[in-house]
Amino acid sequence: MDLGIAGRSAILIASSRGLGRACAESLAREGVNVIINGRTEADVTQAVDELRASYPVTVTGVVADATTTEGRAALLAACPAPDIVLLNGEGPSPAIFDTLSEQQWAETAQRSMIAPLMFVQAVLPGMCERGFGRIVAISSAMVKSPNPIMSLSHGPRLGLTGVLKGLSKDVVKHNVTINQLLPERFDTGRQRQMAELAMLIKGITYDEARAEMIATIKAGRLGRPEEFGDAFAFLCSANAGYMSGQNLQLDGGSFEGVF
Amino acid sequence: MDLGIAGRSAILIASSRGLGRACAESLAREGVNVIINGRTEADVTQAVDELRASYPVTVTGVVADATTTEGRAALLAACPAPDIVLLNGEGPSPAIFDTLSEQQWAETAQRSMIAPLMFVQAVLPGMCERGFGRIVAISSAMVKSPNPIMSLSHGPRLGLTGVLKGLSKDVVKHNVTINQLLPERFDTGRQRQMAELAMLIKGITYDEARAEMIATIKAGRLGRPEEFGDAFAFLCSANAGYMSGQNLQLDGGSFEGVF
Amino acid sequence: MDLGIAGRSAILIASSRGLGRACAESLAREGVNVIINGRTEADVTQAVDELRASYPVTVTGVVADATTTEGRAALLAACPAPDIVLLNGEGPSPAIFDTLSEQQWAETAQRSMIAPLMFVQAVLPGMCERGFGRIVAISSAMVKSPNPIMSLSHGPRLGLTGVLKGLSKDVVKHNVTINQLLPERFDTGRQRQMAELAMLIKGITYDEARAEMIATIKAGRLGRPEEFGDAFAFLCSANAGYMSGQNLQLDGGSFEGVF
Amino acid sequence: MDLGIAGRSAILIASSRGLGRACAESLAREGVNVIINGRTEADVTQAVDELRASYPVTVTGVVADATTTEGRAALLAACPAPDIVLLNGEGPSPAIFDTLSEQQWAETAQRSMIAPLMFVQAVLPGMCERGFGRIVAISSAMVKSPNPIMSLSHGPRLGLTGVLKGLSKDVVKHNVTINQLLPERFDTGRQRQMAELAMLIKGITYDEARAEMIATIKAGRLGRPEEFGDAFAFLCSANAGYMSGQNLQLDGGSFEGVF
Repeated sequence: MDLGIAGRSAILIASSRGLGRACAESLAREGVNVIINGRTEADVTQAVDELRASYPVTVTGVVADATTTEGRAALLAACPAPDIVLLNGEGPSPAIFDTLSEQQWAETAQRSMIAPLMFVQAVLPGMCERGFGRIVAISSAMVKSPNPIMSLSHGPRLGLTGVLKGLSKDVVKHNVTINQLLPERFDTGRQRQMAELAMLIKGITYDEARAEMIATIKAGRLGRPEEFGDAFAFLCSANAGYMSGQNLQLDGGSFEGVF
Repeated sequence: MDLGIAGRSAILIASSRGLGRACAESLAREGVNVIINGRTEADVTQAVDELRASYPVTVTGVVADATTTEGRAALLAACPAPDIVLLNGEGPSPAIFDTLSEQQWAETAQRSMIAPLMFVQAVLPGMCERGFGRIVAISSAMVKSPNPIMSLSHGPRLGLTGVLKGLSKDVVKHNVTINQLLPERFDTGRQRQMAELAMLIKGITYDEARAEMIATIKAGRLGRPEEFGDAFAFLCSANAGYMSGQNLQLDGGSFEGVF
Repeated sequence: MDLGIAGRSAILIASSRGLGRACAESLAREGVNVIINGRTEADVTQAVDELRASYPVTVTGVVADATTTEGRAALLAACPAPDIVLLNGEGPSPAIFDTLSEQQWAETAQRSMIAPLMFVQAVLPGMCERGFGRIVAISSAMVKSPNPIMSLSHGPRLGLTGVLKGLSKDVVKHNVTINQLLPERFDTGRQRQMAELAMLIKGITYDEARAEMIATIKAGRLGRPEEFGDAFAFLCSANAGYMSGQNLQLDGGSFEGVF
Repeated sequence: MDLGIAGRSAILIASSRGLGRACAESLAREGVNVIINGRTEADVTQAVDELRASYPVTVTGVVADATTTEGRAALLAACPAPDIVLLNGEGPSPAIFDTLSEQQWAETAQRSMIAPLMFVQAVLPGMCERGFGRIVAISSAMVKSPNPIMSLSHGPRLGLTGVLKGLSKDVVKHNVTINQLLPERFDTGRQRQMAELAMLIKGITYDEARAEMIATIKAGRLGRPEEFGDAFAFLCSANAGYMSGQNLQLDGGSFEGVF
């Protein structure tokens, strides 16, 4: 399937590792020039090198924290008129609600809700003017199915979900779509972290921690990052302009609700 | 119907006027002792006086801004072990997304999402210990149906919605419920404000502005505050302990979606 | 709380036992004249006798199968202009999807979706003309969270859910509301049946079967029928005219989804 | 993007015209052998001829009504072990709820809910055994947003939605996914029919009828069938095995609800 986006430019926030990295790969394969971003230079350099070695597209690395004004400016300096934007960022650690301070909430809201909205604010008018835009946010399955131990994660992310949905209604007429992908348990470093946390807390082995995770997934396995990347690439395709405001669950069919 | 809550105590945040005031009235009528709260002394005094004149319950006024640590402390000082809590607060004005600053987002997130969560954090353990609790938040119909002009409102409120839903799963076993009411267009000062805004922007009369509002409501009328108050009182009733994590729309049947 | 419906008339389909019986009791207590219906004469007679002994309202028994044209005619003959209608009926037994025949589907669709719609068709125009109507259907929590072993139950019931929602949009302007209650595990004969089925299949005791059920409910207990009856009565109240097209879950807070 | 399904076999119910035809084309382009189905021989023949002329895959026509036992048998005779199945069928005409007979409901339930389920019953065990399956149903945006004039359409279709969701939970572990696509206003013969109906009822021109339709779509245009076909092809891809039980709206971003 020709996605019809060869030659387009994409800014992928937090794409040096994990799901973001997989998204970058799926786009590069389709001929999209990509801005790779991360906070750690070594990771960014490695991702840039690997993608350059594999695909004949322009791959640019931007070491920056996209939750800051400067970070966002650096990304836009590297690509002032992106056709495609991936909103992504590290999620917070699990935490008991009773222990959360006002400041923790404020910081997480800034990182997970407000910072992405500031970036959307910066790119949306240009996309509308140019008549093409694909914004996709990596959210979490928990925005539809909140688990109290992850309040810091799903709270601000659900706030972001609502604002993006509202905005999507206004811009789809300009061939600009805004969608979210809701992953649940992909085989990335994040899951290794979560497994290590479980090992520590429950005194179990890595294999046991992993088996516990997999038991929560109806597919009976973790997702593969390239499955995620391809879903992302599809949402960015030229022929996906009639789908917007969607929250696509990539969760091994685990969500219980009908909608 | 005997709601089975006579003698209980309730803290009602932002209850000196509008929907909060109607909630207080419905509880007082059922024999619940109520803490009336608002930021304007005259409004609080008037509400307290009127309720005292009508119902043989203890009515206490607390002039305070519940979005501040001090305000929340003042409320809890007046009623350290509330059985019922109404989370409420003034919504932000309409605003174009393009014009919103990072600071406006942060302030609204603090007021509409974080401050209510801090209050929930303060009262939830006691409710669980005592084996009775009814927390109800006044949210907005827009958390299910976001309108981009109200991004500041539905974003943080949807964040709150998610966190409350998650928490509700943990506490219902203690006979503590957490629900939300989602109003759309009740005949209160808020709607007068909105109508005046429309008069200004569109150069129309008050009657025209009001007719425009009513045209968006399938019931063909605005809601009456006492309808809201009674729904709230029902959610607080002894027999409502098996309903939790719900988002009840009080919108004149206007929501388009099946769920 | 005065529900404002004393003197109104209600037809309650399948109300001689279980949740329907509890709904009838809650209405009778509020002064509503009730039509009790069931297919078994002894059950109907007993319910009628008990309600008459307790409440000074007109209680009429109609022994009829409301899934038939004749049954519906008998109910309407007993009460040609009902203000309130409860749609209810026995749910199908659990069944493996692979074993279901086209005929089983057709019969269940007739009983659980089409028959209730035929009754709605018969009463809706009159309610609209008279400017008051409260239609409430007892559905199932599974319409939002389908379990494949209950396909026969949630399939047709979800069909009914959709049609009722659509209709609700047209009639709310006449002060006619249509809502659904979604129970999950109330302490009625239905749960005893389910427990007995589990005893048979799994070779466990009644207490074990019951404990298994309770383990699926976040509230840590089964619901009490009077909790259901009171929620129903509230939806029928005069002040509930601004709530329509809602699906209220009475499930001990068990639904995982945010909406 | 290589969808990884070249050489697979697909049965596409109702695929001689419109959206079904577009789905067939997108699969054929990916190297999938397709069974084209319709009730009119000329349409089937034309579709088969066109696809054969364009793609080096096996294209087989089966003239049959898939809502009948015989029709389903003919399809399975032509392709006993399909990897991919498209569930599709003609939707009913708009109709006033008050005028619908029990028989109209029964017939529509058979065609739109029961017949597809019978086909799913026939193919699902084989898919599970073979460890690959992609079932996609073309439903309607109205299953999430019911319009009373289309009760006959969204009622049974919502029933189907629920059953498919339930089933999806059981089979995803076998790499068998079940998803739905919810179109709203694609530029096909169906929309021409709808426009002609509007011309007749409202006495307007074709262009006016079409403009009225487009005004209901936030994208400001009708969808193009190939956009639909590509979304379908993506859901059928090898890398889409971690997405199941989804209802993807292809509606020009028009749905109001956040989920």
